[in-house]
Amino acid sequence: MESKEEDVKVGANKFSERQPIGTAAQGDKDYKEPPPAPLFEPGELKSWSFYRAGIAEFVATFLFLYITILTVMGVNRSSSKCSSVGIQGIAWSFGGMIFALVYCTAGISGGHINPAVTFGLFLARKLSLTRALFYIIMQCLGAICGAGVVKGFEGNARYELFKGGANFVNSGYTKGDGLGAEIVGTFILVYTVFSATDAKRNARDSHVPILAPLPIGFAVFLVHLATIPITGTGINPARSLGAAIIYNRDHAWDDQWIFWVGPFIGAALAAVYHQIVIRAIPFKARA
Amino acid sequence: MESKEEDVKVGANKFSERQPIGTAAQGDKDYKEPPPAPLFEPGELKSWSFYRAGIAEFVATFLFLYITILTVMGVNRSSSKCSSVGIQGIAWSFGGMIFALVYCTAGISGGHINPAVTFGLFLARKLSLTRALFYIIMQCLGAICGAGVVKGFEGNARYELFKGGANFVNSGYTKGDGLGAEIVGTFILVYTVFSATDAKRNARDSHVPILAPLPIGFAVFLVHLATIPITGTGINPARSLGAAIIYNRDHAWDDQWIFWVGPFIGAALAAVYHQIVIRAIPFKARA
Amino acid sequence: MESKEEDVKVGANKFSERQPIGTAAQGDKDYKEPPPAPLFEPGELKSWSFYRAGIAEFVATFLFLYITILTVMGVNRSSSKCSSVGIQGIAWSFGGMIFALVYCTAGISGGHINPAVTFGLFLARKLSLTRALFYIIMQCLGAICGAGVVKGFEGNARYELFKGGANFVNSGYTKGDGLGAEIVGTFILVYTVFSATDAKRNARDSHVPILAPLPIGFAVFLVHLATIPITGTGINPARSLGAAIIYNRDHAWDDQWIFWVGPFIGAALAAVYHQIVIRAIPFKARA
Amino acid sequence: MESKEEDVKVGANKFSERQPIGTAAQGDKDYKEPPPAPLFEPGELKSWSFYRAGIAEFVATFLFLYITILTVMGVNRSSSKCSSVGIQGIAWSFGGMIFALVYCTAGISGGHINPAVTFGLFLARKLSLTRALFYIIMQCLGAICGAGVVKGFEGNARYELFKGGANFVNSGYTKGDGLGAEIVGTFILVYTVFSATDAKRNARDSHVPILAPLPIGFAVFLVHLATIPITGTGINPARSLGAAIIYNRDHAWDDQWIFWVGPFIGAALAAVYHQIVIRAIPFKARA
Repeated sequence: MESKEEDVKVGANKFSERQPIGTAAQGDKDYKEPPPAPLFEPGELKSWSFYRAGIAEFVATFLFLYITILTVMGVNRSSSKCSSVGIQGIAWSFGGMIFALVYCTAGISGGHINPAVTFGLFLARKLSLTRALFYIIMQCLGAICGAGVVKGFEGNARYELFKGGANFVNSGYTKGDGLGAEIVGTFILVYTVFSATDAKRNARDSHVPILAPLPIGFAVFLVHLATIPITGTGINPARSLGAAIIYNRDHAWDDQWIFWVGPFIGAALAAVYHQIVIRAIPFKARA
Repeated sequence: MESKEEDVKVGANKFSERQPIGTAAQGDKDYKEPPPAPLFEPGELKSWSFYRAGIAEFVATFLFLYITILTVMGVNRSSSKCSSVGIQGIAWSFGGMIFALVYCTAGISGGHINPAVTFGLFLARKLSLTRALFYIIMQCLGAICGAGVVKGFEGNARYELFKGGANFVNSGYTKGDGLGAEIVGTFILVYTVFSATDAKRNARDSHVPILAPLPIGFAVFLVHLATIPITGTGINPARSLGAAIIYNRDHAWDDQWIFWVGPFIGAALAAVYHQIVIRAIPFKARA
Repeated sequence: MESKEEDVKVGANKFSERQPIGTAAQGDKDYKEPPPAPLFEPGELKSWSFYRAGIAEFVATFLFLYITILTVMGVNRSSSKCSSVGIQGIAWSFGGMIFALVYCTAGISGGHINPAVTFGLFLARKLSLTRALFYIIMQCLGAICGAGVVKGFEGNARYELFKGGANFVNSGYTKGDGLGAEIVGTFILVYTVFSATDAKRNARDSHVPILAPLPIGFAVFLVHLATIPITGTGINPARSLGAAIIYNRDHAWDDQWIFWVGPFIGAALAAVYHQIVIRAIPFKARA
Repeated sequence: MESKEEDVKVGANKFSERQPIGTAAQGDKDYKEPPPAPLFEPGELKSWSFYRAGIAEFVATFLFLYITILTVMGVNRSSSKCSSVGIQGIAWSFGGMIFALVYCTAGISGGHINPAVTFGLFLARKLSLTRALFYIIMQCLGAICGAGVVKGFEGNARYELFKGGANFVNSGYTKGDGLGAEIVGTFILVYTVFSATDAKRNARDSHVPILAPLPIGFAVFLVHLATIPITGTGINPARSLGAAIIYNRDHAWDDQWIFWVGPFIGAALAAVYHQIVIRAIPFKARA
């Protein structure tokens, strides 16, 4: 039967898995892997919901950069970090905005707000190439505008003095360290996205989707706690691009490739891990 | 059919939206846009639940100002911010109180605790003008009393020395920056409120309402992380008015208009964005 | 009909309340106010579940004091607050433990972990006097043991130097300020408890009970953010008594009454506000 | 009847428990204690889901050590703790990662990520000895790799200077203090795990499993707030072993036994407390 997953051939589901923490029995009832999205879906382009989704991604990424870069500027301006919200406050700002914005836009666009997430979900064939490219463009435009508004508030001199929240590899670390940190960090984010939105999980337990924004936001928060000292933490190419364009100094541009290559590799690894190792989708019997 | 949304004319719902993160399929089953509230509903005035809702708004706004202004005073009194809960603790205080109070009062009054939220929901015709004005008055009275109790605890001298949690535009920023920060900040809050309480979303998934207080509280927390350095963060005219009346110094009064005009513009933009762009309510076919 | 609430006489429920944020329609279907608990229920004393509940309260209050007082000691020992979890970390410790422990013990004892909560719920006739007194005794014993273990770890000299997490009114505040802070703080906590566990709300929406620990824990966190500078924050007589007995210095004992009278007044006010103003229970028609 | 719990003999369930906070009535309907897992289940070894679970434990523990040790290094490198995420940020890092990772892996392996949790659940016969040993080995390997990657980023000199996040008893505390802190800390974690995943609770209320990761993550966060000053906080033998192997200095190895003996004792006590005192499983009538 098509709606029945058979897992891989080595005897899966012969012995029911015991899952003592936090999960219902993994029965396959009602579970149906959705068919992969087509690469191009020309009809989408005539749908208002397609453009509305793009607008929602633009607005969400705009608000994301606005709040986070403003928080970074407030911390950097403060002579003593103690009289600001601190580095931890910056991490809350990034993670918390992702939580709130995924919550708000999930029903409209899927709530990506990040080209790496869009890329990972595209690799898993959850959306068409058309839609993926449209989202990525809207995310980048939103990010540029968000960072631009912050520069407007702070003024050119102060914005450049405090580096505008741009991502680059800090002294004491190599480019390789920075690239590695971006790869593993994005892996954590995109793996959480896959786990939270797993169609199999949804079938088992219908309130997972609603709770998904919280662990996704926490994943962003946690990666920031760990890697702000290394690169300022990208794991979101739109965020890195927007900050770099508005800041526009050489040392930010020199490292920009890291914040595209790293997140895309991390997202691809997460897609492979979730779809092949965890879900074993390629090994499933065709119905 | 009246209960069936037709979205806008450009082919919406022809192609099902793919929503890989955090959302169930956006089917329209069981969904019914509630009719707009009348401007005046004289019968409300004879209902005990109307007055009870006003009392609940008063008490909630009282507790909101009491806890938050007391936290601000504790941080400002501390010679080193490190020996206080810090600026981040202030942000938690504002956001956390909104989370807890919306949770407690949502079933009684809707849990606004903020004239800008009331104004935004009024524009979307979710409550009558009578009720909106009554709520705003009760919120302002509650805020004044809450700030007053803090002044009672701290004493006049200390209260004025540490500025009583009043909002004004900090040096280094223009009035325009402050107004902009209030507009965007309130937009984020009221947009989250609309997203969390969307009737369409409720129809799809009945536990969203219960979870609504968490993202709403986080939105308040996040805006504070970003804009405390600019204005101390208002995004709530009752909070700004209450603190200004009890503090009662010229520099707080001079900027008071910003904390009314900004939040009301932000709330109106959020109402427009959610009702027109996202929900496309004006474009729906009349049944 | 007994199971149908009639609210108060001034026309309640004639006009349906509009609740734009975070709540389902307040229909009375399936809602039944539970009968008040008897004052004495001698049969309870023969029930294992009664003693098990007492043990659970003992263990929970033990763990509560252990973690929170240890956190306080760690912060006080640190020469610079910056190299500790800080005052904000203390607030998280108190609030977070209440969240986790209410989650763990709610199904066993109701998860009070606080004589003021037990007192408030007793006033609302949610448990018998026998059970209330038993819980309060077990909570106090647990608190004494928890603080005792911390003293064992820290040693007498260090424990006394850093004041053992005892509550007293700090310099710069009057006894009246301290009493007021305890009253309002406990009001916020017990009001949140009532809101979260409202039988009417449960009837409407069955997952509220599960989510109750989060806002309750946050309420404790928020009150600590605001009133640690005033009294160190009690709002829990068992916590204040346990710390005072193990610390055992005059200046802690002198103020001890504040941390019993204040919380009990606050809890009583919250019971009155919720049962009379919000639920209007005395005004309901007898069936 | 087998599916009906009879509690202990002293009259349990004769008087219904009153549970005013956060819980539905503790009816026994639909509740069935699952049979204990066999010690050895040879068939498991032929199941792909068994190996997949081991891989998931490896990856989760790898990511756990990577993020947390990197966060510790970032804080220790910072000359002023204020310009880092601070000790509180370290506590968030440990607790938050457990929240996110339990959320992601609960459906695959049960989401243990900690040999002490595996041991406690094994004692309660929730999984076979084969599976328990396999998980513990995979967790330790993952932890070593995670800490190794951090050392790769930081370089040998810096890694050793800042002590690589290794656990040992800090000066000012005895080995006995450290052992006690590990026992009580692990008790809190494993007790929360048992409470969150109680089969009886699941039967009553099906969304508990979904919410389980949040209190479990908070338990880890809270124990870190309290005991970082004492031992750096282990409560997870894989985490302590991984950090010790990569750091590889005598003073870390000398205390290593504390971070195995303590957590295993704490987990055993939690299993005894939950299974015997709270659930009274040994006293139940055999059907």
